[in-house]
Amino acid sequence: MQNTPKEWNRIDRIKSLVQRHNPQTVVPLGDDAFVFKNFPGLSVIAQDMMVEDVHFSLSYTTAADLGHKILAVNLSDLAAMGATAHFGMVSLALPKELKSSSKNNDGTLTETWLDEFYLAMTALADKFSVEIVGGDLCGSPKSVVVDLSAYGSCEKPLTRAGAKSGDLLLSSGPLGLSHTGLLALQKNMSELFPESVLRHKRPMPRLDLVEHLQLHADKVHALMDCSDGLINDTLILTRGELGFNVFGDRLPIHAETVEMATSLNQSPLELALWGGEDYQLLMAIAPEDLPSFPGWHVVGQFTDSKDFYLLQGDLKAKITSFKGWSHF
Amino acid sequence: MQNTPKEWNRIDRIKSLVQRHNPQTVVPLGDDAFVFKNFPGLSVIAQDMMVEDVHFSLSYTTAADLGHKILAVNLSDLAAMGATAHFGMVSLALPKELKSSSKNNDGTLTETWLDEFYLAMTALADKFSVEIVGGDLCGSPKSVVVDLSAYGSCEKPLTRAGAKSGDLLLSSGPLGLSHTGLLALQKNMSELFPESVLRHKRPMPRLDLVEHLQLHADKVHALMDCSDGLINDTLILTRGELGFNVFGDRLPIHAETVEMATSLNQSPLELALWGGEDYQLLMAIAPEDLPSFPGWHVVGQFTDSKDFYLLQGDLKAKITSFKGWSHF
Repeated sequence: MQNTPKEWNRIDRIKSLVQRHNPQTVVPLGDDAFVFKNFPGLSVIAQDMMVEDVHFSLSYTTAADLGHKILAVNLSDLAAMGATAHFGMVSLALPKELKSSSKNNDGTLTETWLDEFYLAMTALADKFSVEIVGGDLCGSPKSVVVDLSAYGSCEKPLTRAGAKSGDLLLSSGPLGLSHTGLLALQKNMSELFPESVLRHKRPMPRLDLVEHLQLHADKVHALMDCSDGLINDTLILTRGELGFNVFGDRLPIHAETVEMATSLNQSPLELALWGGEDYQLLMAIAPEDLPSFPGWHVVGQFTDSKDFYLLQGDLKAKITSFKGWSHF
Repeated sequence: MQNTPKEWNRIDRIKSLVQRHNPQTVVPLGDDAFVFKNFPGLSVIAQDMMVEDVHFSLSYTTAADLGHKILAVNLSDLAAMGATAHFGMVSLALPKELKSSSKNNDGTLTETWLDEFYLAMTALADKFSVEIVGGDLCGSPKSVVVDLSAYGSCEKPLTRAGAKSGDLLLSSGPLGLSHTGLLALQKNMSELFPESVLRHKRPMPRLDLVEHLQLHADKVHALMDCSDGLINDTLILTRGELGFNVFGDRLPIHAETVEMATSLNQSPLELALWGGEDYQLLMAIAPEDLPSFPGWHVVGQFTDSKDFYLLQGDLKAKITSFKGWSHF
């Protein structure tokens, strides 16, 4: 909504920060809409919003963190479909004081904030040859709100449906690491948990895995990204039709997560099973196809019982409430 | 961000309200992302956000008005590109009290609000065979914020660039009508200005004109939608290279706008030149091509002077500040 020269200057500045020259572009950022030539295959679109004091706190989320994260979570949705990412459109609502070039009392909410937001976003975008091609920038009475739509393409979509009893569930990386980082931030212990804090503030969408996944698409029974924690997300993959055994001894858990759990007198499993926002991929495959996916971690197996169990050594604990579990 | 059974129920309910069965759909709403087969031609995407107390007030914007309007303004951007609309993704941030099914004190902020929002949106979407295929729903500490991305396609994009000296500027309909409605709402005079209030609350994107525009695409030098008022938007079409003469005697002005202007002791032109949010289309064409566009209204002509003038009878007034004009 660019209706004053001041707004025009700001839009021009943002344009200069984000614009690239994708060969598919027909009408670039700056017209009524963005126009591009279709990519081969199918089109894939995702859209997620983040709201201040709901999804993040500005007390430990910088403009750069936010710019990175809102793109990352949407690119993760494309990766979770087995899609290659191409474009993002981002809308940002900012409290009015942010719209002035003068510094506020706390010195953080300035034009610099906008530069840092878009620069961090484009740094991530560039990593995957993604371009920010439009969106909106407007005032907000109170909270920072950011919404991003991501556009990609794929040959074969890899959906959440299709897990079968007997399938293994694989994770593309450590679980509970982001939540470890959140706890470290909340406890002012960031320096002791650098990897966790980095992965919480700057999650990395697993678009690097898409090419391999598409090559083996016929072996992928179900795929999704892990944003709400292993158990909560696996529940979606069961579709209410299957059960699941978590292999407690085989979960990929980072040393910092073990350290955090120890400091809290908890089991590291607690963080790995329930911690959200890791943005690793979870994939269901037949056991015999495991050799096709080197680097992935087996985290459990689907069953036909409709119940969830945690297997650990000789113990088998039923997970009942989906907020914890009871040993028996 | 669907991480509780309550959220699932809400998402399921919204899904049941908005889901259609577009034949291009490959993976419907409910997976990590929406997947569809490419439409013929080029892809077109637009995204606009609306924030409570910045773009609208809940004191005279109902849930249904908002659901209609956020889709309408984005579909208008597609129409302004000469594109056919196909899909929308909508993200909505709502104050927490809206997330309860119990009524608030004022009885408006309820689950009913959500139903009305999505139903009005899909009513407009259905009118143009558009489907809402995803997005997000989340809490907000204070303001209602809604952001929508619209996806469409076109054979030839009709851009804002290309107006030439001597070109006529045409409007697809009355100018100043939406602003008349806003004034009527602010003055509690809605009943006297029914058409204006309707067009302010429920603007209608001019997608009905797209087929004809594409048929005559070679004659369209420039096209955009009029959201910030005739003069402000025409300034964009001049690209700082051209001037413009407004034909004050020929502007399409609705009787209600004349009535409102009279009651304010203003010229109706004041409303027609500066009032925003009409979402009519503005188009630059060569004078000889006028017969190809029946139903459009000639509102002015581009010149090579770089200045803006209002022509009215024998008077010629220079528009200087882009907030008003000075006669001389």
